[in-house]
Amino acid sequence: MKLVFQKEELLRSINIALRAVPSHTTMPVLECIMINAIGSRIRFTTNDTELGIETIVPGIIEEEGSAAVQAKLFSEIVRRLPQENVVLETKENGVVNITSGKSKMQMVSLDGSDFLYLPVIEKEDFVTISQFSLKEVIRQTIFSIAPNDNNPILTGMLFEITGDRFQVVSLDGHRISIRSMQLKESYSDKKVIVPGKTLIEISKILNEDTDDLIHMYFTANHIVFEMTGTTVVSRLIEGEYFNIRNMITRDFNTKIKVNRKDFLSSIDRSSLFVRENDKKPIIFDIEDGFMRLSIESTFGAMDEEIDIDKEGKDLAIGFNPKFLSDALRVIDDETVSVYFINQKAPCFIKNEEEDYMYIILPVNFVR
Amino acid sequence: MKLVFQKEELLRSINIALRAVPSHTTMPVLECIMINAIGSRIRFTTNDTELGIETIVPGIIEEEGSAAVQAKLFSEIVRRLPQENVVLETKENGVVNITSGKSKMQMVSLDGSDFLYLPVIEKEDFVTISQFSLKEVIRQTIFSIAPNDNNPILTGMLFEITGDRFQVVSLDGHRISIRSMQLKESYSDKKVIVPGKTLIEISKILNEDTDDLIHMYFTANHIVFEMTGTTVVSRLIEGEYFNIRNMITRDFNTKIKVNRKDFLSSIDRSSLFVRENDKKPIIFDIEDGFMRLSIESTFGAMDEEIDIDKEGKDLAIGFNPKFLSDALRVIDDETVSVYFINQKAPCFIKNEEEDYMYIILPVNFVR
Repeated sequence: MKLVFQKEELLRSINIALRAVPSHTTMPVLECIMINAIGSRIRFTTNDTELGIETIVPGIIEEEGSAAVQAKLFSEIVRRLPQENVVLETKENGVVNITSGKSKMQMVSLDGSDFLYLPVIEKEDFVTISQFSLKEVIRQTIFSIAPNDNNPILTGMLFEITGDRFQVVSLDGHRISIRSMQLKESYSDKKVIVPGKTLIEISKILNEDTDDLIHMYFTANHIVFEMTGTTVVSRLIEGEYFNIRNMITRDFNTKIKVNRKDFLSSIDRSSLFVRENDKKPIIFDIEDGFMRLSIESTFGAMDEEIDIDKEGKDLAIGFNPKFLSDALRVIDDETVSVYFINQKAPCFIKNEEEDYMYIILPVNFVR
Repeated sequence: MKLVFQKEELLRSINIALRAVPSHTTMPVLECIMINAIGSRIRFTTNDTELGIETIVPGIIEEEGSAAVQAKLFSEIVRRLPQENVVLETKENGVVNITSGKSKMQMVSLDGSDFLYLPVIEKEDFVTISQFSLKEVIRQTIFSIAPNDNNPILTGMLFEITGDRFQVVSLDGHRISIRSMQLKESYSDKKVIVPGKTLIEISKILNEDTDDLIHMYFTANHIVFEMTGTTVVSRLIEGEYFNIRNMITRDFNTKIKVNRKDFLSSIDRSSLFVRENDKKPIIFDIEDGFMRLSIESTFGAMDEEIDIDKEGKDLAIGFNPKFLSDALRVIDDETVSVYFINQKAPCFIKNEEEDYMYIILPVNFVR
């Protein structure tokens, strides 16, 4: 095999492929990028058994062939090459030569015969959205998955299509994050649980250009993301997701409108007094026109007031400041509305259209 | 005590004081910034018993007094305050109130009676240089101290004044870094060993402005750095430094001139094939007009050529690439000269004036 690349294009493809290289594995071949050059097409494949990526690499095939090269070393070598022009050539005994200008580097390739290529998926039913929207939706919900939980469902996110509505949900037992958006067309209903890790990795590949589209294919066990030149295949998490409709109410006794940045910076200050072994809540005292925010721990205390627009009853309620700030940080609106039922029931941070809804359980407090 | 600050000025002073707050200590009062407000002067003091800092803080004293406040929490609170105007006020039972706009934060102060203030140093004999020069000199030599060594001398740096010459030396058994500069005046001879940690911390305080000066005072057990408003006192390391004059020679058999960036990027590439458990040397084959650089390990190999100007004999010699790149990275010259004696003797990277000299031991190799 002999291939010619431009360094920057090669690096871009390597960086995409790296997203499915496992950091720890008992199968050394999975630490590799599998290079296949057949006909006019150079393809890089990586697979960590849950998530797999295949990407087409711009380049010239001077001689067809294939090789499995250690992904991280390959990436480091290419990153440091002196010239734009890069020649990759396989030699005897599995040696791979990488030449650029006056520099010749050698690395050892592995026998790729036991490499796990991506499963062949029947790609029928797909949903199209912009890469930008998918990236946004993930960013605004990913924080409330449970990173490591006995219940694997909590480590994933619900992707649900109902007609022309796309809804994403994550929850961790203390809070629920819901983001929904309208699609350009209607589709048949779909409901799958996508691993959080897949979504973190795909976020790093997605463009921020609203014109670049992505197709999502849904099968019984997999979700496939298809972009120009790149295909990402992920296993789904098996099981039935929680019925979140039961947890949503629209009967509120108190509603406040507040400047998001001021609210967030006040909550960030209060979090200085929370420690792993001393989890004190921030307490809101909601009255007409203003809200008092206070916290008191063994390390110190905070007490401040913030202007609000209030409808409904006065209320005193406590929260873990982290759960509030996680949600407030990803909202783009200048003003946010928060809805309360009572001291024991969750609050709802949402806009009128319910594009986003953050449901957060309160914390008991004593005075 | 009641003090009024501007947030940005207060933060700047806290950041200076933080440099002498120990990360681990058995004396909680040393995790504090000691605040003293007497007459018209607000002073912050910190001390980790080896290094101490005293800095004058711009602010208004509405009521004199003193308080020891937990440094990291104080810093985090001030960083997040909503307004420029900051009022700090001590209350009963050691409570300290920090008020800014509508935000009131409270922290607990410690009994400062057992705080270790800085030793009173008789400041007679001092040397003046620009803060910029001191920062540069430290940056260009600090990397070759031994971070943790049985021999404390290796964890420090030699500061030597001879007439109008200021020389700084660090060494770790594999290499020696020497940086010297001319002072504006002549001083009496001085020779002390300054702890590496002190120099790392003072580097973070130093300005990059060549007009800002620093006075260094030398006593039997301490070095004192004095800048406008801030004094840093450090213990010295006891003992006799190595006589490096014996290690310096000017009898060379081979001299090369090489473009620094090309040389460095070639060495950086070679370091990809060095692992903790497989330390292979980079081998230079020096001939007329060019130098071949090669490395071969179980992970792969590199082989390249670089243009040089050569004087003297041909030579093949091996090095640990890290030691070469550490030195080449901090040199500002476009072209560097490297002097060799033979395969078993150290090489010297230095300029004509010997402002800098990096002496690096070679590594044996077999072919």
